[in-house]
Amino acid sequence: MLQPSQRPGQGLAPFFEAQGIAIVGASDDPTKIGGRPVSMLIKYGYAGPVYPINPKGGTIQGLSAYPSVLATPTAPDLAILAVPAGATIAAVRECGERGVKAAIVLSSGFTEAGTEGAALQTELVAIAREYGMRVLGPNCLGAVNVADKLIGSFSIALEENMPPVGQVGIVSQSGNVGSYTMQSVARRGLGVSRFIATGNEADVDVADGIAALAEDDGTRIILCCMETCRHADRLIEALRIARERGKLVIVLKIGSTAEGQAAAASHTGALTSSDAVFDAVFRRQGVLRVRSVEALIDIGHAASLLMPNRLPQTNGVTLVAASGGFGIMMADAMSEAGLQLPALADSTKSRIREAVPTASTGNPVDASAQMSARPDILLKMLTALLEDPAESTLVLLLSLSLYNKRLRGIYLEALTQVRASHPDRLLMVISQGPAEAVEQINALGIPVFPSIDAAASGLAGLVRLGQLAHAPIHIPTRSAAEPVDPAVFRSEFHAKRALAAVGIDVPSEAIVTSADDAVRAAESTGYPVVLKIVSEDIAHKTEVGGVALHLHDAEAVRTAYANILDSVGRHAPDARIEGILVAPMVQGGTELIAGVSQDAVFGPVVMVGMGGIYAEILKDVALQAAPVSEDEAADMIRSLKMFPLLDGARGQAKADIAAAARTVARLSEYAYRHRDDIAEIDMNPILVRPQGQGTIVLDALMIPVSASAR
Amino acid sequence: MLQPSQRPGQGLAPFFEAQGIAIVGASDDPTKIGGRPVSMLIKYGYAGPVYPINPKGGTIQGLSAYPSVLATPTAPDLAILAVPAGATIAAVRECGERGVKAAIVLSSGFTEAGTEGAALQTELVAIAREYGMRVLGPNCLGAVNVADKLIGSFSIALEENMPPVGQVGIVSQSGNVGSYTMQSVARRGLGVSRFIATGNEADVDVADGIAALAEDDGTRIILCCMETCRHADRLIEALRIARERGKLVIVLKIGSTAEGQAAAASHTGALTSSDAVFDAVFRRQGVLRVRSVEALIDIGHAASLLMPNRLPQTNGVTLVAASGGFGIMMADAMSEAGLQLPALADSTKSRIREAVPTASTGNPVDASAQMSARPDILLKMLTALLEDPAESTLVLLLSLSLYNKRLRGIYLEALTQVRASHPDRLLMVISQGPAEAVEQINALGIPVFPSIDAAASGLAGLVRLGQLAHAPIHIPTRSAAEPVDPAVFRSEFHAKRALAAVGIDVPSEAIVTSADDAVRAAESTGYPVVLKIVSEDIAHKTEVGGVALHLHDAEAVRTAYANILDSVGRHAPDARIEGILVAPMVQGGTELIAGVSQDAVFGPVVMVGMGGIYAEILKDVALQAAPVSEDEAADMIRSLKMFPLLDGARGQAKADIAAAARTVARLSEYAYRHRDDIAEIDMNPILVRPQGQGTIVLDALMIPVSASAR
Repeated sequence: MLQPSQRPGQGLAPFFEAQGIAIVGASDDPTKIGGRPVSMLIKYGYAGPVYPINPKGGTIQGLSAYPSVLATPTAPDLAILAVPAGATIAAVRECGERGVKAAIVLSSGFTEAGTEGAALQTELVAIAREYGMRVLGPNCLGAVNVADKLIGSFSIALEENMPPVGQVGIVSQSGNVGSYTMQSVARRGLGVSRFIATGNEADVDVADGIAALAEDDGTRIILCCMETCRHADRLIEALRIARERGKLVIVLKIGSTAEGQAAAASHTGALTSSDAVFDAVFRRQGVLRVRSVEALIDIGHAASLLMPNRLPQTNGVTLVAASGGFGIMMADAMSEAGLQLPALADSTKSRIREAVPTASTGNPVDASAQMSARPDILLKMLTALLEDPAESTLVLLLSLSLYNKRLRGIYLEALTQVRASHPDRLLMVISQGPAEAVEQINALGIPVFPSIDAAASGLAGLVRLGQLAHAPIHIPTRSAAEPVDPAVFRSEFHAKRALAAVGIDVPSEAIVTSADDAVRAAESTGYPVVLKIVSEDIAHKTEVGGVALHLHDAEAVRTAYANILDSVGRHAPDARIEGILVAPMVQGGTELIAGVSQDAVFGPVVMVGMGGIYAEILKDVALQAAPVSEDEAADMIRSLKMFPLLDGARGQAKADIAAAARTVARLSEYAYRHRDDIAEIDMNPILVRPQGQGTIVLDALMIPVSASAR
Repeated sequence: MLQPSQRPGQGLAPFFEAQGIAIVGASDDPTKIGGRPVSMLIKYGYAGPVYPINPKGGTIQGLSAYPSVLATPTAPDLAILAVPAGATIAAVRECGERGVKAAIVLSSGFTEAGTEGAALQTELVAIAREYGMRVLGPNCLGAVNVADKLIGSFSIALEENMPPVGQVGIVSQSGNVGSYTMQSVARRGLGVSRFIATGNEADVDVADGIAALAEDDGTRIILCCMETCRHADRLIEALRIARERGKLVIVLKIGSTAEGQAAAASHTGALTSSDAVFDAVFRRQGVLRVRSVEALIDIGHAASLLMPNRLPQTNGVTLVAASGGFGIMMADAMSEAGLQLPALADSTKSRIREAVPTASTGNPVDASAQMSARPDILLKMLTALLEDPAESTLVLLLSLSLYNKRLRGIYLEALTQVRASHPDRLLMVISQGPAEAVEQINALGIPVFPSIDAAASGLAGLVRLGQLAHAPIHIPTRSAAEPVDPAVFRSEFHAKRALAAVGIDVPSEAIVTSADDAVRAAESTGYPVVLKIVSEDIAHKTEVGGVALHLHDAEAVRTAYANILDSVGRHAPDARIEGILVAPMVQGGTELIAGVSQDAVFGPVVMVGMGGIYAEILKDVALQAAPVSEDEAADMIRSLKMFPLLDGARGQAKADIAAAARTVARLSEYAYRHRDDIAEIDMNPILVRPQGQGTIVLDALMIPVSASAR
């Protein structure tokens, strides 16, 4: 959890802005891990002093080497450690003594290598903390500040060229994936601000990286690749900082296939997947999540070309191709990605036909090969399209036209002119290349996607980014945990009483210990009633004959009371019996299930889904980290596939969704408050009645955090 | 429908094998539509005579021109028409007179241009038929035989180079999409056999193209792009021919987003989408359907490298990357694509660790950067992996390594050796380039995919192709249509009687016209019973008080009989009443819905889905062109999302799926037999009882083909 003293990103400046760098384990061989940073710092012209550290001293790659960091002429801000794992301990202590502010441990052989390595890693961090040093890694690819040529990395991606300086920051746990992203971005001519790869995350984690880049004025877009999250609160806080600073965050969260879910005692537990919680939390924190490294790069690239004022404001798109077939493919892909294809205005249509008589002016526009006959024809058509009142994004498919020199000239000329005359309108191109033509189009501020599918999911992502830029910032709740009365774990009666105490409607119920009291309770409740055995030792009441339904009068209640005690006595002779529950027989309404379980990353997570067997088979549930507001809960309910059942499908009455949302929100607050004690809650079923008539929770189950898990 | 005299593909030989070609409307300008074929036939060296036809005569591009095809020294087999639409009529007649066997009409201005053009097109085809000529187009990009340099096309894709000669045939309705596919395939160094673009399909259609390529010995893989299908029987027959000849067919069917479904009178009609029927028919005919032109090219390319003996035999995949992060991404994508990741054998693991001590030997294998330190290390590791007993496909991710010269050399050396030592094992690479390195790897017979997602869906497609290569060939039913007794349209009673006559179980029911008869019928059926009004004028029986349920004795039946007549008399005084239906009150079992509707392309289509509101909200239905076998029907039922409900979910009894399949199969045969008369059938609900206890169809509705639609 977030340490109050340590805001994400705090103390990371030396990784990017160090005045002086020592390389511990420096090598004269520029291809070795200890040689590469030295070589690249020299080659690209880092301005501060570079101190190779090597016990042999002498000269390394033309620089004076020092036997220890203690011997350097000035105290370097940053040390890069490229010595075997065992040797890092002494090295990091010397760094501390020398006043080094931050260390990058490139070496492997720590937690990832087994228990011995894990012990080394613990020691390493302890020493760093002692000296107030931040540690990046171990087993990481380090950090880079492109503008300052500060290269605390051995990435092969930097061997031949530095990326151009730009606005894209890269944070990655995996060095390889981060490096691939940096190199791919650079190969497209797109500029990078800073790069940080966190590796084992003994100290600095992805949240630190995001926050540090969010606070860097040179960074506008943060591309992040993460595998695991060890401190959800820090991640959420870092994302909040990024929102506050107006930085766009695009995350590739990998490892989404559940390797097998932990056995769970409740329905909620079985229906909650950690990956789906990541989805929900990213959405809430204004992050665009993507599903492939190509999408990370494509969308990051497009966003950087469109910022600050050309992110799409609507999800409308107008499609143009020189071919009907490609037009249909574009329409299919864009519709599937959730984009709308508005019809063109009549005036736009006539302007297009004036320019290209053979064009068909639906959306997609089949502009026929004639559109590229001359630059002025193309320009006329594009101008008409960009001036269409729908103001949708214009997507132009060029298939392989840019490989043809004549066509390439025509396209570039028309695009250049139209970009100049309509600088604020959003225009995208689909083309596979060649690369230099794509770069020329990019240079006009026009994103180019390599395929129809990439363009469709890319534009949908950009629309989402445009919406996120205007969405309110979510400030997470940070109230302290409160203990719960352990009685709630004893039976459904006590669980429901606790829920009733926070304003969740449950049936008026009584526990009785005599047939007379049962009849009195039934009469006060009103017939028909149900009787259920109450025992903390009996999980499945029906199986021991512990339930009687549809009891319409006193005699039926008396008979049922006796039968239940008799049957339970025979089937579960050792069970501690607290009494018998008398409850009204409630029917009608639509069944929901809601609950809370503990996610390994995000703590208490609230779930709502359709009741009964359908939730189980269809996994038709919505999740969010607790607590949720009533608005959030209503959104969760509306996102269910079976939501039409609540919304008046087939002429049924609309259900009381507001009440259902209130119930879920209150459940989530309750669970969050008691998060240290309650592991899981099921409310199953919740009957949701017609609008204005509320909900009623018919059964509830609470499971304590086990002694071992605490 | 298939004309018996005209097998798909028949008469297409001249498009590809013409001895002599006339170009009507030939131009001296090699960039014009009428100039390009002349120029390319000369440039690439077509062996037969080329006759430019131009009223001015003289010389065209160095060849003697003739004023008419009637004046050519020999009769050309093929004519290419590049004259304005209006002039094609006279030209095609002259071709007929001259004994030309086939004509390619490149010109536009026909059906796509309005009614006048449509009339021209009809006339064009009529004249061609008169002379026994086949016509390709009009408004098409023509046909190409790569080996013979026979170019009946003006495709810009051929302007600079011919594709290499190879085994890939391309059939496309859209000239642009076909041309893009040909050019993309060629840019990868992959060979093409023949190309045909069908345009308006006045005569030759995609089915002809598929069949013609299937019968070409030089073609092994057919890549097809289609938008519409005018003759389902021809398409199915062409696909059958391809299966029979052992040719793989990969289809990109575009236009999958329903633009809005025709209003339908039955549930079945509302739940049937033509695109889903295409899916089902392609599956049945052994075709791999892909969703993007990139997948068409990627998978076509990979399949051509793996044929004939290395298509995957299992859906197992072993993943290798030099990075944990990429390994996780690969695992996510492959699992999502339905592939399995078997664990490596212990012996394989130790061999890997021996070669690369830093490797982690799960699946995915994180082989660390060490794997590419030396070719012998990589070779040792790859050999161990290819000799693993699981025999899964090995997928190696190279991220950007091939851009690094040293690494590229190492990879190529190891891959070359391992390919030579294990020629039959399936190995794939993921890499973005550079292009020449990818071509070198392809030349080893190793498919290279540009991204993890492309590799995952590509491998899944190859697995499917491998399965299809061994699946039985589906021979469609071709029995004649029989008339139906129009009584089936009168009421549910008659509809169910007709279904009962083909062996579908329905309740034993009677129509009565007196209360006494109602009681007698109820007593013979057994109580409880239901009474329902029978009138062809009353569609919604409940709304007019025409239904009574749960009738337990004679008195209840009498009362209900009177009440129904009274209520219907008041609510629908003009309805013709046939009587009152007495049926047993059947309950229990799981509800299915099944039905048949008429698809615009495939005719009668059978649908089965979960009953009730769920089918509607979830669109949880399976479709197939009628008739279906019991096995096919069982597969359809098993494919439902809610199938677990029938299969004993939550400890319920397993439903009688065999009986349900039998019911669906019989329905489909019945509907197919009466396809000319019955437009739609609903069986809703079908109660499916526990195993061995059969099904019972509680309600049925049949809708006639309307007089206007016939």
